[in-house]
Amino acid sequence: MNRVIQDTGSKYPIIQAPMGWIARSQLASAVCEAGGMGIIETSSGEVDNCKKEIQLMSELTDKPFGVNLPLLFLQDDSMVKFCVDAGVKFVTTSAGDPTKYVGILKDAGITVYHAVPSLAGAIKAADAGVDGLVVEGTEGGGFKSLEEVGLLVLIQSIKQNLDIPIIAAGGLVDGFGMAAVFAAGAEGIQMGTRFVSSKESPVHNNFKNKIIDSGIDGTMVLNKKSKPVIRALKTDLTNDINEKGIMDMSAMMNIKELYFGGDMEAAPALSGQSSGLINEIKPVKQIIDEIIDEFNSTCIKLGNIQF
Amino acid sequence: MNRVIQDTGSKYPIIQAPMGWIARSQLASAVCEAGGMGIIETSSGEVDNCKKEIQLMSELTDKPFGVNLPLLFLQDDSMVKFCVDAGVKFVTTSAGDPTKYVGILKDAGITVYHAVPSLAGAIKAADAGVDGLVVEGTEGGGFKSLEEVGLLVLIQSIKQNLDIPIIAAGGLVDGFGMAAVFAAGAEGIQMGTRFVSSKESPVHNNFKNKIIDSGIDGTMVLNKKSKPVIRALKTDLTNDINEKGIMDMSAMMNIKELYFGGDMEAAPALSGQSSGLINEIKPVKQIIDEIIDEFNSTCIKLGNIQF
Repeated sequence: MNRVIQDTGSKYPIIQAPMGWIARSQLASAVCEAGGMGIIETSSGEVDNCKKEIQLMSELTDKPFGVNLPLLFLQDDSMVKFCVDAGVKFVTTSAGDPTKYVGILKDAGITVYHAVPSLAGAIKAADAGVDGLVVEGTEGGGFKSLEEVGLLVLIQSIKQNLDIPIIAAGGLVDGFGMAAVFAAGAEGIQMGTRFVSSKESPVHNNFKNKIIDSGIDGTMVLNKKSKPVIRALKTDLTNDINEKGIMDMSAMMNIKELYFGGDMEAAPALSGQSSGLINEIKPVKQIIDEIIDEFNSTCIKLGNIQF
Repeated sequence: MNRVIQDTGSKYPIIQAPMGWIARSQLASAVCEAGGMGIIETSSGEVDNCKKEIQLMSELTDKPFGVNLPLLFLQDDSMVKFCVDAGVKFVTTSAGDPTKYVGILKDAGITVYHAVPSLAGAIKAADAGVDGLVVEGTEGGGFKSLEEVGLLVLIQSIKQNLDIPIIAAGGLVDGFGMAAVFAAGAEGIQMGTRFVSSKESPVHNNFKNKIIDSGIDGTMVLNKKSKPVIRALKTDLTNDINEKGIMDMSAMMNIKELYFGGDMEAAPALSGQSSGLINEIKPVKQIIDEIIDEFNSTCIKLGNIQF
């Protein structure tokens, strides 16, 4: 039995990443309805809006969904308590040490997966008692580790050291990539950029089209001498940040103008190398159905190879 | 039928990378005898020694072997002619435009695979008429592309655009990784660091042990503002080069003192992220047998998963 399906309660082990402002009920409910695991973000820091979005989910779908808690950015434990009271069953934690809240969440019957970009982080999270890991390769978009370790290497390293369910993230868009990470030991995939560019994604078409138009070399890792380290699309703004070598958080201040106003120079457009593999804006259900078809046929094909 | 096996004539689609000075008859013949494809390097520029090594191969093994031709570093076409006259059947070209020699090589009945780190390079090589590609993800050691694209993303991008046999390289050490890249569309794997740290590798034990001791974050990409861009183990020397931000080729001058004298600070120790997955010095035959066992069992396991 696939442990990620057991833990999420969703039909398929396909998880939608918790992109700030984007991972809200419109997108997440579409993912749930298509058999995946929709996740509501709280990293935007818009506490009241995020709570409303969580409540909205029960109206939009009767399928299970999850919430992401970015530990370093939580102002207090109100969002943790809210998840417990709202009957949320699945939480991903990220950006910080899961120790503080894993007990409270698990006591409330919530399954907790922690997002890690490194073997050391994986071991720490397992020691803290999380149920599983979201393993993020350097290929992915958004907040990154300074150590740019490829997804396959990272999964295999964690599998050599721990027996814990792994959701793989970074550079994944289809069933071929899904089968690949399953071969390495993952039991689920998480996708961000693929869902950002889906039909049901709330972002401006300029952002979706820029993802479609970008090649696999269309992103870069920025701000390596400071924090946060991010992967974003190459634009005039990000090229400029790259030249300067440093960025402060204020660069992210106008991200809503990019996401919803379509001004691609308003902030760094967080995106993974997967942008180079995405060639079309598709409905979420089509994305997930195609992935499952590709995954199944790839596994059958591999099952017939023996040397 | 697996096209890489067809093209190499070896029992398994497992190719040994052409590391300068290291990829010589001692290591390459062990790979051939174990059912893989051993490759003799010519990137050291030691023309006479490399010719002798190619001749030695026929004495050490009756299995097929290959030669690597790093196009930019060939002083003239004597090595190309030598391969033709010596009856070499398989050549990998790298570091440059394959157009110049692909005709001569193919007219002589030699199969040519060209090593590429990018989609653009892959399309160019296919247009030039090569038979296949060695696709090198950023995870691998040695000479790298400035664009640090992960292996899975790179393979999938090339598969979206070309139908040509792919040997995947970068971060691969075992049958799980091999099954993973086969899922993404590859038909063979090439390994460098794994064979550098094998029992039959001619390098000093200090280098092998440093690979064993390194984690997946034990390497870095150096010299991004100049050429060549390389991935090497973290040492005092490479940390220093990284600080300075720039390196010239003279840094590589004393590489033989590292490889064969065991002085890990004599030059950058070229190595991939796979160093973090390698935990033991093993004989080549054991490495290849274990890979095939792991690959076969992983494929059977995947063949039984259907969603």
